[in-house]
Amino acid sequence: MKGYWISFEGGEGSGKTTLIEMLRQELERRGHDVIVTREPGGVRIAEQIREIILRLDNTAMDPITEALLFAASRRQHLVEKVLPALERGQVVLMDRYVDSSIAYQGYARELGMTQIRQLNEFAIQGALPDITFWIDLDPEIGLSRIADSGRVVNRLDKETRLFHERVRQGYRQIAETEDRVVQIDGDQPPEAIINQMLERIEVK
Amino acid sequence: MKGYWISFEGGEGSGKTTLIEMLRQELERRGHDVIVTREPGGVRIAEQIREIILRLDNTAMDPITEALLFAASRRQHLVEKVLPALERGQVVLMDRYVDSSIAYQGYARELGMTQIRQLNEFAIQGALPDITFWIDLDPEIGLSRIADSGRVVNRLDKETRLFHERVRQGYRQIAETEDRVVQIDGDQPPEAIINQMLERIEVK
Repeated sequence: MKGYWISFEGGEGSGKTTLIEMLRQELERRGHDVIVTREPGGVRIAEQIREIILRLDNTAMDPITEALLFAASRRQHLVEKVLPALERGQVVLMDRYVDSSIAYQGYARELGMTQIRQLNEFAIQGALPDITFWIDLDPEIGLSRIADSGRVVNRLDKETRLFHERVRQGYRQIAETEDRVVQIDGDQPPEAIINQMLERIEVK
Repeated sequence: MKGYWISFEGGEGSGKTTLIEMLRQELERRGHDVIVTREPGGVRIAEQIREIILRLDNTAMDPITEALLFAASRRQHLVEKVLPALERGQVVLMDRYVDSSIAYQGYARELGMTQIRQLNEFAIQGALPDITFWIDLDPEIGLSRIADSGRVVNRLDKETRLFHERVRQGYRQIAETEDRVVQIDGDQPPEAIINQMLERIEVK
């Protein structure tokens, strides 16, 4: 692969969207060819799969069916969008990837971190980012940021405080075992965070 | 589980459909409450998933995406249809299940038997039939039966002779390692096969 691949992880209100946009601008200023994506990312087959997950009348959806559908959508987005971009030499900034599934579904929803990790390993067949930034933030701060911003509150935002604490614990476990994952203190000015990221990135 | 669950496996033209119907009639004659099903089996979410697999314009479908979608469809069919039928005490006759994926996708299509087995273990979470009949038949005979019957030839029928031989080898490996799977010589009169099956079935 000629390009460079960065994924961003974190709980609700951790500031990923803002940070990704700032990093994109900085990398472009330095002359890099950057794309920003998140699953399903406009990939038609992946969008069709997400539609099934999101259909309001699919109330009979089993949690394991849902995990398999997320993995299928991930696979197709990877093959059709991410890998070709890397092949073209682009820098790929990706909002959430496998670690989200492991932290949210595997750990916080208790489907099992090992099971969800194995499922995702089948889906991605070894295709992992060069680096993953976990924007770590106390859920209390993240959720109050969302409340203050006037952003529309979604289903995940409404989960219990305990759930968001569990997501954070899940990420902590991943960061402790995976060298690829770099923990970033999310309770800093965005400019400081971007500088920390730039120090760790090794784009050619 | 109060019911009894039988799955049927075999290559193209092995006679599964006929045998399932004959066995259903015999079991009903003996007073059992029988349902016959095959994935996606009228389960709405499972049907939606199959639609994505089958859409002719989804030519960009990756083989691993496809395997994940099959597993998702299987999960939903299992949870919504098979397990409730067993809970009601019914005898479930199922045309193909996990062994088909392992033989066709894992072995013959070379996605890896171990990988496809693990994926399916995640999807079924231990839910396996009480017994599985593998109707073993020389592909030469099976394919000539299809040709003679005037049945519409589908995509799988048209695969090379070598592919069908590989499917058979895949089933052979499964039967050698799984006590649940009973090999039945498919080159016999159907009545003889049904008698062999009845000897092995232990419905209450």
